[in-house]
Amino acid sequence: MKGMPLPRFSAAKLKRLGVDIFERLDASREYAELVVDILVDANLAGHDSHGILYLTRYAERIKKGIIDPKSKPEVTNESPTTALVDGHWAFGQVTAKKAMEVAIEKARRNSVSTVGAFHCNHIGRLAAYTLMAVENDMIGILMVNSVNPAVQPYGGVSRFLGTNPISVAIPAGEKKPFVLDFATSSVAEGKIWLAAMNDEKVPLGWIVNNEGCDTDNPHDFSISTPTVEGDGRLLAFGARDGHKGYCLSILIEILGGILTGAGSILDRGAVHPNENGILAIVLDVKRFTPIEAFKKRMDSLFTTVHEAPIEPRFKYEQVQVPGEIEWRNRETRLREGINIPDQVWEQIVSLAIELGIKGSLIDSH
Amino acid sequence: MKGMPLPRFSAAKLKRLGVDIFERLDASREYAELVVDILVDANLAGHDSHGILYLTRYAERIKKGIIDPKSKPEVTNESPTTALVDGHWAFGQVTAKKAMEVAIEKARRNSVSTVGAFHCNHIGRLAAYTLMAVENDMIGILMVNSVNPAVQPYGGVSRFLGTNPISVAIPAGEKKPFVLDFATSSVAEGKIWLAAMNDEKVPLGWIVNNEGCDTDNPHDFSISTPTVEGDGRLLAFGARDGHKGYCLSILIEILGGILTGAGSILDRGAVHPNENGILAIVLDVKRFTPIEAFKKRMDSLFTTVHEAPIEPRFKYEQVQVPGEIEWRNRETRLREGINIPDQVWEQIVSLAIELGIKGSLIDSH
Repeated sequence: MKGMPLPRFSAAKLKRLGVDIFERLDASREYAELVVDILVDANLAGHDSHGILYLTRYAERIKKGIIDPKSKPEVTNESPTTALVDGHWAFGQVTAKKAMEVAIEKARRNSVSTVGAFHCNHIGRLAAYTLMAVENDMIGILMVNSVNPAVQPYGGVSRFLGTNPISVAIPAGEKKPFVLDFATSSVAEGKIWLAAMNDEKVPLGWIVNNEGCDTDNPHDFSISTPTVEGDGRLLAFGARDGHKGYCLSILIEILGGILTGAGSILDRGAVHPNENGILAIVLDVKRFTPIEAFKKRMDSLFTTVHEAPIEPRFKYEQVQVPGEIEWRNRETRLREGINIPDQVWEQIVSLAIELGIKGSLIDSH
Repeated sequence: MKGMPLPRFSAAKLKRLGVDIFERLDASREYAELVVDILVDANLAGHDSHGILYLTRYAERIKKGIIDPKSKPEVTNESPTTALVDGHWAFGQVTAKKAMEVAIEKARRNSVSTVGAFHCNHIGRLAAYTLMAVENDMIGILMVNSVNPAVQPYGGVSRFLGTNPISVAIPAGEKKPFVLDFATSSVAEGKIWLAAMNDEKVPLGWIVNNEGCDTDNPHDFSISTPTVEGDGRLLAFGARDGHKGYCLSILIEILGGILTGAGSILDRGAVHPNENGILAIVLDVKRFTPIEAFKKRMDSLFTTVHEAPIEPRFKYEQVQVPGEIEWRNRETRLREGINIPDQVWEQIVSLAIELGIKGSLIDSH
């Protein structure tokens, strides 16, 4: 289907369909809406790798008992500034939101906080949670380890680390917030899946094949779906220039997985491969500097970034502030809709029909 | 002098000489020892870019009134979990150590803490401070912005950001601690200076020349010493593969410079170009998980890293844990001494003579 326009859907329709699916799988309306909002928001931000394609994956995990759609996370091991959240294998989004809410409340009372979570399923795009801190005029930091091995260590040749992402969101004034949100691998694994589904090449520097050679063929990277074969590895980010991305990945393995008591690459085979170990740090800006002055400085910083002279071949018309591209994508996609690869849409429709959903929600427009 | 063996000095001799120099420049014994210990420890770790070559730079800054060797930092804006330290332009090392001491004490009482500092001179190698947290069975995180522009933004062509480094140190058990410590630029600026002094090429991907082209000639990167000419820029780390290093650099600009009220690239010209804005976050491990169990898990993680299969052309015999190379360098250099480029040594001797230092301390062995 390469080159064909992909079917396009409104965010509202995708949300209604997603909520209907999860409700039929025994999730409450509240949890179904939370999970689907975070998935569709990832599509809106332009990160289809973290979007609605997870509907069918989560449905499968619910059927297998990996996600318990009725389970509720529980706050444990609490102090005025810290806590651990036992996710009890609820939707990862429910656990991560709880962890961030607890962290924000503790930072409100005590200026800074650190909250971890374990027994936590896949949480989706991290910015969803760090932006909760921003809504409270706080800085949100979130690091997540994933036990599922996909990334080769610097100097190594095996699938060793998860894609171990980090997000930091910081409030601005008139401007949209600063949002850093990325995997410490070259890219998120889902970006390889999507390229494979769309039969597109990937840039060199993202993956190596099973012989450790650079490749632009996403099919050289095998995953658990039937669409991609091979046995390649993701590189840590910046791996062609050194060790730093790998060091960050190991750091997040420790903070997300070991400090919190969640799973780690140490436990491979013994823990759930879809577990996300998460650590949130929240800082209340006003404890350091008056919030309005801080926001003005943030706006000025962004203006200075935009005024920096630009490389003529650069793909944007200005140097970008982290998060800015996603804010623009969101406006465009809210207006024009979200493209979904045929294969993803067919899987969703097939699941919907199986669950008894009929009518316009499963039309391809 | 390319290819000639460099003169080699014991750490002890360099420390005695450095302390003598700073005492003659009106520093107390305590402060002189603190600063020199941190500089020489950087040499021992293998990071000569952050080592004893700063003796003459700091001496010059003292003469110009940039560093006040008698000044003491002051803790301001304090809460049980947070503080800002006004460095009052003391030695940066004195201010950074104070900030980390305050952060550790607050984390001891309240589990987590965040302490910033402003009016702070150059602090040297960051690991010196994050390892203070490790000595207290805590996790130390330190981010530092530098107003001095050296790094080109992703998509840009100008000197825009400082090298904005980060360090995180985490305790282990039988093994040496985890130490992540790097510039968010391709490398620290000092590594370009040293290559220029030693007339060595640098790897492609470190710098671009004043026309924005890749170059391996360190002289294409101009700095404030007379040894390097040109007007090139450092790249953000991993810049050949994308934007992530640049995003981290902007993050540290905000957390180190703007949140703390220290200088930022916004204030160029208005603030001191040598100012370091610093933000320390300290987490008390035992609030999250029993410390002995945590340390055992860290040791196991390191063993797992070492057992990972290795790329045949890799320069080390095992996949490395962040910080490990530096611990080995330290053992070697404590035993065999520290190589100092002739040009650096000549500058030090000339300063020492000017200050009236005579005898064996300024012999070249």
